[in-house]
Amino acid sequence: MYRVALDVMGGDFAPREVLKGAELALKAFPELYLILTGPEEVLKPWENRERVSLCISEEVVEMGESPAEAFKKKRKASIFKGLELVKEGKAQAFVSAGNSGAVVAGSIFILGRIKGVRRPAIATLLPTLKEPFVLLDVGANTECKPIDLFQFGVMGATFLNRIWGRERPRIALLSIGEEVGKGNALVKKAHELFLNSNLNYTGNIEGRELYFGKADVVVCDGFTGNICLKLSEGLAEAIIEVLKAEVKKSPISLLGMALAKGALKSFKKKSDWREYGGAPLLGVKGAVIIAHGRSDALAIKNAIKQAINFIKVNLVDRLESAIKEESQ
Amino acid sequence: MYRVALDVMGGDFAPREVLKGAELALKAFPELYLILTGPEEVLKPWENRERVSLCISEEVVEMGESPAEAFKKKRKASIFKGLELVKEGKAQAFVSAGNSGAVVAGSIFILGRIKGVRRPAIATLLPTLKEPFVLLDVGANTECKPIDLFQFGVMGATFLNRIWGRERPRIALLSIGEEVGKGNALVKKAHELFLNSNLNYTGNIEGRELYFGKADVVVCDGFTGNICLKLSEGLAEAIIEVLKAEVKKSPISLLGMALAKGALKSFKKKSDWREYGGAPLLGVKGAVIIAHGRSDALAIKNAIKQAINFIKVNLVDRLESAIKEESQ
Repeated sequence: MYRVALDVMGGDFAPREVLKGAELALKAFPELYLILTGPEEVLKPWENRERVSLCISEEVVEMGESPAEAFKKKRKASIFKGLELVKEGKAQAFVSAGNSGAVVAGSIFILGRIKGVRRPAIATLLPTLKEPFVLLDVGANTECKPIDLFQFGVMGATFLNRIWGRERPRIALLSIGEEVGKGNALVKKAHELFLNSNLNYTGNIEGRELYFGKADVVVCDGFTGNICLKLSEGLAEAIIEVLKAEVKKSPISLLGMALAKGALKSFKKKSDWREYGGAPLLGVKGAVIIAHGRSDALAIKNAIKQAINFIKVNLVDRLESAIKEESQ
Repeated sequence: MYRVALDVMGGDFAPREVLKGAELALKAFPELYLILTGPEEVLKPWENRERVSLCISEEVVEMGESPAEAFKKKRKASIFKGLELVKEGKAQAFVSAGNSGAVVAGSIFILGRIKGVRRPAIATLLPTLKEPFVLLDVGANTECKPIDLFQFGVMGATFLNRIWGRERPRIALLSIGEEVGKGNALVKKAHELFLNSNLNYTGNIEGRELYFGKADVVVCDGFTGNICLKLSEGLAEAIIEVLKAEVKKSPISLLGMALAKGALKSFKKKSDWREYGGAPLLGVKGAVIIAHGRSDALAIKNAIKQAINFIKVNLVDRLESAIKEESQ
């Protein structure tokens, strides 16, 4: 059995979509055991369900709330309760689509960091014209040191190798030019660290190349990464909006798009972040998956799947070994 | 007459596309006078042309070359010659699709900065679902101070107001959350400066909202801005590639896309950076337009149009007044 704690109060469509996602996951993964954290009235209908236990928590961290404040004042909120379950060994992983800052802060304070890791990072899988790539950090750290970027590279490569079976993932630094020496001071210093390692480091990658599959692990600070992630989502949506608006102007185009529907659907699925489930927080002593704030049932189900994979390959230990090896 | 110096050796498709662009511009703008800078054998056919004079320069700064090195060793290259023409008053503006780092460095050293401006910035217009917005800096400064971001806001708003007639442009700081207090130290400090100004400052904007027309001027450091700009270009191209590949899989979809062709064309035009011409370098004592490295004739023509507009409204003086006003 894989014991996963799930925050039913996290995300814009909680608890409805989270609970639907729980249903889907229980059906899809026979070895899944869920521990739901949330208020009693929400969880009542789930009493006496097979492969489910409840962890009642009446407090909820709101989406806009300051993580530090929440951690001080709402220690019994569903997010922190879920992390306590992992800490106590009652759950092997925790999934939440709630306030990601609170999940990060809670994970660091409750679970602690993996030995040798200075800063944990949120890693996210993104589609390309070829295989998906991992971008990290996408929001756990707004300020980073060169050693942080280096460790993100180590952890991202280990994640991609162990869970997605990618051999010797190509690691690149996100920067403003491919040539050595292009970038800010942070990138230039991180470059030196990668050069002196045994990693499969391929140098800088520009924003233009990100979605063309030229790297497996793309490393940046959490400020840049978060902006890139959200920009990509927004731009993809805007492009689809503009296309729709243009098509509506002419009946012939409308007919055309109707005929191309299958292709558009398949395209949409390919570029859909929900397919990849949540983003793992790499570098803390526990399997923590941060699902998207706008997660629906499918996204929650896939985030739970990520959590199971995380447990299966014992990723926390793998990360610790990798960090240790590269620190020598 | 508007006297514009044009670097015929700048860009991936120089000199051919640059010269074609010069032709288009001379036809389209009867008040344009062009001074072409480049090697004699390239410019020979342009001798004795009406509204054209030549400034022979045998050296060329290559695209990958270090700007500082180039400025030291190739002071007679077409980029620096063109800037000298502006400095000497022989031209009123300079346009180049060449090594943008060299254009920035040359502009700062040859023309000098506008009084009060700490760092000049490259501003670029980008399309949204509504009106286009200005993003700056997109690459002149990899490291910025809070005062730089503030001055970028002042200059971006002045540019948009004077050249595009946008009234009281809404200025926003690019960050990782809309709430006050979200962002890195740089953004948080710049936020204070904007709050204490008379500008139409609307707070943070997230990457997700960039293309939905929620701000007129979006301010960030040149590292972040350059990555955002290139990421947007690359992602738009990748989306179109994926769509094409999906459509090719089925004859019905292929027919559909053929029928939707008009809409797709109109969409492409709307999202085409070439329509906006080049990106002005704001903050130096002269009108300098940096065209895209991949500029074709149309992009060059539109960059020249931007240069004419820059001269028409006397933007350098406007920027100086605006900076002075906001420094008080």
